[in-house]
Amino acid sequence: MKSTRKPQIAVVGGSDPTPDVRDLAKEVGRTIASLGSVLICGGLGGVMEAAAQGAKESGGLTIGIIPDYATDLANPYIDVVIGTGLGHARNVVVVASAALVVALPGSHGTRSEVSIGLRLARPVIGLRSWREIEGVHYVENVEELRKTLMPYF
Amino acid sequence: MKSTRKPQIAVVGGSDPTPDVRDLAKEVGRTIASLGSVLICGGLGGVMEAAAQGAKESGGLTIGIIPDYATDLANPYIDVVIGTGLGHARNVVVVASAALVVALPGSHGTRSEVSIGLRLARPVIGLRSWREIEGVHYVENVEELRKTLMPYF
Amino acid sequence: MKSTRKPQIAVVGGSDPTPDVRDLAKEVGRTIASLGSVLICGGLGGVMEAAAQGAKESGGLTIGIIPDYATDLANPYIDVVIGTGLGHARNVVVVASAALVVALPGSHGTRSEVSIGLRLARPVIGLRSWREIEGVHYVENVEELRKTLMPYF
Amino acid sequence: MKSTRKPQIAVVGGSDPTPDVRDLAKEVGRTIASLGSVLICGGLGGVMEAAAQGAKESGGLTIGIIPDYATDLANPYIDVVIGTGLGHARNVVVVASAALVVALPGSHGTRSEVSIGLRLARPVIGLRSWREIEGVHYVENVEELRKTLMPYF
Repeated sequence: MKSTRKPQIAVVGGSDPTPDVRDLAKEVGRTIASLGSVLICGGLGGVMEAAAQGAKESGGLTIGIIPDYATDLANPYIDVVIGTGLGHARNVVVVASAALVVALPGSHGTRSEVSIGLRLARPVIGLRSWREIEGVHYVENVEELRKTLMPYF
Repeated sequence: MKSTRKPQIAVVGGSDPTPDVRDLAKEVGRTIASLGSVLICGGLGGVMEAAAQGAKESGGLTIGIIPDYATDLANPYIDVVIGTGLGHARNVVVVASAALVVALPGSHGTRSEVSIGLRLARPVIGLRSWREIEGVHYVENVEELRKTLMPYF
Repeated sequence: MKSTRKPQIAVVGGSDPTPDVRDLAKEVGRTIASLGSVLICGGLGGVMEAAAQGAKESGGLTIGIIPDYATDLANPYIDVVIGTGLGHARNVVVVASAALVVALPGSHGTRSEVSIGLRLARPVIGLRSWREIEGVHYVENVEELRKTLMPYF
Repeated sequence: MKSTRKPQIAVVGGSDPTPDVRDLAKEVGRTIASLGSVLICGGLGGVMEAAAQGAKESGGLTIGIIPDYATDLANPYIDVVIGTGLGHARNVVVVASAALVVALPGSHGTRSEVSIGLRLARPVIGLRSWREIEGVHYVENVEELRKTLMPYF
């Protein structure tokens, strides 16, 4: 039996986004679900929650890899909670578990995920963000994002 | 929106089991799926593979938390691969991500998972094994296991 | 330039030991320092603190690998604090950083360290404890421990 | 007994630096040792090795936190090897174990360390690098670095 797993996609971004970025994250979640891909994220609030909400609205499966052991800290749109207890080292697990990383605006934690993603040779797609980091594939909107993701499916 | 996540169950055990233990692991996987629970395991061979196979046969969802980054190392019955790259520290993530731990016969790696499970105050159910470790709830067969799991659902 | 590092030795054991075990841990620390070896431990209380105290009394160097980020949580006999923030996954780092593991009486956390030590093929020496685990080299007292350690120096 | 530990300082930077950056790293290592501080680094080549060499030349103590279990992979200027086996998650441990982070030029791995350092509220001092990241305290040379470090000692 050969596995037929589709590429898993991580969405990373800030935990306190602007309303615009939150809407964008929801759209990203919907897009990932519509591709039949599993959404991987950090399982907490902000971009993580909005992306998971979008994926659930489109019938997708959502995985939240959280820094704590208490799995009830995950946002309510997460189907499966990975309770790592690893603190910030869970950021590495988030991007390592994905074939592709979509990065929205965020702060230091998000930048660490973009950096580790590139270090692990994952394609990292910056959505309206992270253009200044060499190696990031920058896109302006979700339509461009979808076109960038398509060849992997 | 309140989450309706059911308790996730980890299955741990040796990577080179006897045929009897392999069959037992398959049955455990079926039981977990029939309870509507997500199966968490280490994603590789032996007990991990048999349990995942059993869960898939009963329509369940399987998560493999592997020690490497290369997610194609997971067995073919894994739906979602968490590629931790953490080496043996991934054992901690396996049991931490579960509300309940079912332990089958195994060696040092399995014992570390039983120990961390108890340390994290997860109920650890030893199936034909680990009776000598204080705190393990010992059961003799899958019927007894099912009865032990029921109150959590 | 060739490194002349001596084998590092980890001491693991309970955080709330009996006075007897505490004294034993102090003696172990002294022994390790007298061999010119660096003491690796979990950096917190009980066996970890007593072993570090013993090592300091004999002029040794002590490393505490703690589960938290706040390095001031380490006991006062630790020279260098590794603030992992990894929770119980730090147990893996403790034994992985040592060429040899000395295990005193303890509970689930200690058993996880004994198990991972054996899994990593580190010689694990059980001092008045862990005799029941296959692969552990059991010794009755610090004199026997010293004789067991000598060939590695 | 109160601990008298001085602040530990992490040096991060690329594994394949230019000769200039390598010399700079050596000077940084000497500076850290001359302050009586323990040098924390990733234990491998390039900036990590040069900084450790500099620290050893000035009589300092060097800690190498490596991604692997095989502690003989550390460079020869490392006194104590922490063999994490955690892969890139060891980057988190490097900066978390330090009160201060000195960042030299590097690539994605170094950027992840700068980011996690800032996320953990460690002062991060960029030496001829990382000026573009908000929150990094930029310095042009080792003299400025020393002046920036002094108030912490």
